[in-house]
Amino acid sequence: MQTWEAITSRRNVRSFTDQPIAAEDLHRILEAGRRAPSSRNLQPWDFVVVTDGTQLQELAQVWVGAGHVAGAQTAIALIVGPAEGPGHRDEFDLGQATMAMMVTAADTGIGSAHSAVGDQDLARRLLGLPADHTCAYLISLGYPADRPLAPIVRPDRRAFDEVVHWAHW
Amino acid sequence: MQTWEAITSRRNVRSFTDQPIAAEDLHRILEAGRRAPSSRNLQPWDFVVVTDGTQLQELAQVWVGAGHVAGAQTAIALIVGPAEGPGHRDEFDLGQATMAMMVTAADTGIGSAHSAVGDQDLARRLLGLPADHTCAYLISLGYPADRPLAPIVRPDRRAFDEVVHWAHW
Repeated sequence: MQTWEAITSRRNVRSFTDQPIAAEDLHRILEAGRRAPSSRNLQPWDFVVVTDGTQLQELAQVWVGAGHVAGAQTAIALIVGPAEGPGHRDEFDLGQATMAMMVTAADTGIGSAHSAVGDQDLARRLLGLPADHTCAYLISLGYPADRPLAPIVRPDRRAFDEVVHWAHW
Repeated sequence: MQTWEAITSRRNVRSFTDQPIAAEDLHRILEAGRRAPSSRNLQPWDFVVVTDGTQLQELAQVWVGAGHVAGAQTAIALIVGPAEGPGHRDEFDLGQATMAMMVTAADTGIGSAHSAVGDQDLARRLLGLPADHTCAYLISLGYPADRPLAPIVRPDRRAFDEVVHWAHW
């Protein structure tokens, strides 16, 4: 798929078909995350990949907004280490890695949605995380149950001319 | 360009040729940022676009790591409003918007680099920002002075099998 088609087709998908994600597609999505830029190239992330149905259903309990994980074919948990210090930009960097993975997913028609995580103790137990690590976000992946991904002509966003300023505010 | 080529060709570019960025390419880069997802679709960003050489050179003074802005053809300043409250995820969302713009830039061979901002008073003055707004990041854009963008075979990153865990940590 052309890049612009993937960028404009990506949307939040929260219900998925039973079609599994091919191993090579999943590998490419994870590779896109691995390649993402980060402050001082610290790569402050680890990714835990969940494909088991029972584990996905349990993982969906970690946050009120994580329900879509229960029906996903795969979830990628973004893990970060002990609390950030000065100069660390974990959140910004996780956003970059997440977007790289979601655009790469869209490139092969795979839908995605992400969620924050509230119950860290539950997330740690389900994913076997070290006590000083945190599950920052979950990314659900699967083929959309509603309709295939296609370029969105009128995205639900603020108008271009409202967002973009030229030279000065 | 195919999506995977753009994803794998994106790299930090900090010196640029004199070739200007075509208006339609710049529009598409900004449009990719506008379309980025954000927590509760808050779209907590404004973009100020700088193309004037003198303004770029002044803007490069806002942070020790912003030197590449001085030689950029264009810089996009990512602006956020008053301090975030509970549930806001400005940094994560800015990371998503930044990655969408950088991948879209790479799609047409345009290099990019981003920088944090230290001297907010200077940034506010140069960009005419409201007193309660902050310039969170700058994105430099231009054609690479060293070599054209091309897929990177061996990125300087942690090994795939070190980053990716299956089912459990």
